[in-house]
Amino acid sequence: MKRYEVIGIDGLPEVARDADVGALIHEAANRQRTPIEPRDILVVSQKVVSKSEGRIVRLSDVEPSPRAEALALELGRDPKLTEIILRESRRVVRGGKGVLVVETHHGWICANAGVDQSNVDADTACLLPEDGDRSARALRDRLKALTGHEVAVIIADTFGRPWREGLVNVAVGVAGLQPIKSYLGELDPAGHVLQATILAIADELASAAEPVMGKLDRIPAAIIRGLDWEPGEVGSRPLIRDPERDLFR
Amino acid sequence: MKRYEVIGIDGLPEVARDADVGALIHEAANRQRTPIEPRDILVVSQKVVSKSEGRIVRLSDVEPSPRAEALALELGRDPKLTEIILRESRRVVRGGKGVLVVETHHGWICANAGVDQSNVDADTACLLPEDGDRSARALRDRLKALTGHEVAVIIADTFGRPWREGLVNVAVGVAGLQPIKSYLGELDPAGHVLQATILAIADELASAAEPVMGKLDRIPAAIIRGLDWEPGEVGSRPLIRDPERDLFR
Repeated sequence: MKRYEVIGIDGLPEVARDADVGALIHEAANRQRTPIEPRDILVVSQKVVSKSEGRIVRLSDVEPSPRAEALALELGRDPKLTEIILRESRRVVRGGKGVLVVETHHGWICANAGVDQSNVDADTACLLPEDGDRSARALRDRLKALTGHEVAVIIADTFGRPWREGLVNVAVGVAGLQPIKSYLGELDPAGHVLQATILAIADELASAAEPVMGKLDRIPAAIIRGLDWEPGEVGSRPLIRDPERDLFR
Repeated sequence: MKRYEVIGIDGLPEVARDADVGALIHEAANRQRTPIEPRDILVVSQKVVSKSEGRIVRLSDVEPSPRAEALALELGRDPKLTEIILRESRRVVRGGKGVLVVETHHGWICANAGVDQSNVDADTACLLPEDGDRSARALRDRLKALTGHEVAVIIADTFGRPWREGLVNVAVGVAGLQPIKSYLGELDPAGHVLQATILAIADELASAAEPVMGKLDRIPAAIIRGLDWEPGEVGSRPLIRDPERDLFR
């Protein structure tokens, strides 16, 4: 029987710049008597990672470009926030109905380049980690040093999606885990080749963690325990669809 | 501490037309000594629901329309399968690169109207349930009759997404559970109003179940146990984004 558990890690303090997020998670897991175990997957909110990396911008320090001013006017958005979003972006994918969907420098396509103002001080905005995979690897290495255990780390953020209402948690950084599970070329029990079946397991596990994390509860991390997962060091990039195979860019 | 468990339900027999899927799940859960408990959420693959409802089409019975012939030629697809997909669709959203993205009669936007040929007999294709919410309610009621417990049911299928590689499991039918979790108007700890934070909890739980279900393993259902979820009878329709608020239709 396949089964696994999802455990929210509660009671982390407010995370400041240069905070040792790995140690905070390790200590909080110990305090609640669910210490990190070998083969756990840690799902960690990008917000605490970004805060610890100083990826916070003060709006009053930002001078909007003419392009940001024009776009903000068109969309009914704040010009300074729009400027921050554009700086985090490679290109604008779609703007309208108050929403700005961009492709970030990492290659993620999402609203507002992942820049947001919840759970940060007023007059500030929080950016995605500069390199989510690097952040995930650093956290994985730190947790290994603290616990002695091989774990995997998924850094997660809530993204909207076309066509379906509501945000879902997805991976924006991965360490130690193969992010895609592939059935390419395997046969199903009826003898069909499962040609197109590749599953975004890292995104599914980010989503699995969200219900115990919560936006308001200061539970910025969760343990996924008991699942048999495939190790890998390819990070999160395989989750970005090849532009050649994407009909909606 | 928030925690929950995901338990795959193994050992179901092949599901035929008019099979009592509720009883099969109930018995399989008992056999593996994880009987259904009050407040469990059952995530069930659309495939077994569709099979039990006779939502199977024999390709050799299908006469492709001229429109299906033309589209199949353009996309390099099978004309009979294309005809089946068009019959399940309200409109074609995008076709190209061998892929056909449509809006189904239910309102889901997905590849191939959810029609697929894996895990069914050769020369047949499996359709989505005609009304996933009705199927979910029937299954919920049957499980209640069998176990005496209030449970929720999510009928799930794996859908692709723009921009991100890999399929993820999402809800195509819901009974008993509020599919959207909303933080509209609430304040985060820093005093910001969380204006846009609504989470597609039914989709996240469908994704959480996928890693224990598996395409090849004949594990068509999973139990989500221990989560505090909000009851609701609105089905899955709130997961369909209002066209007025969608930039990618």
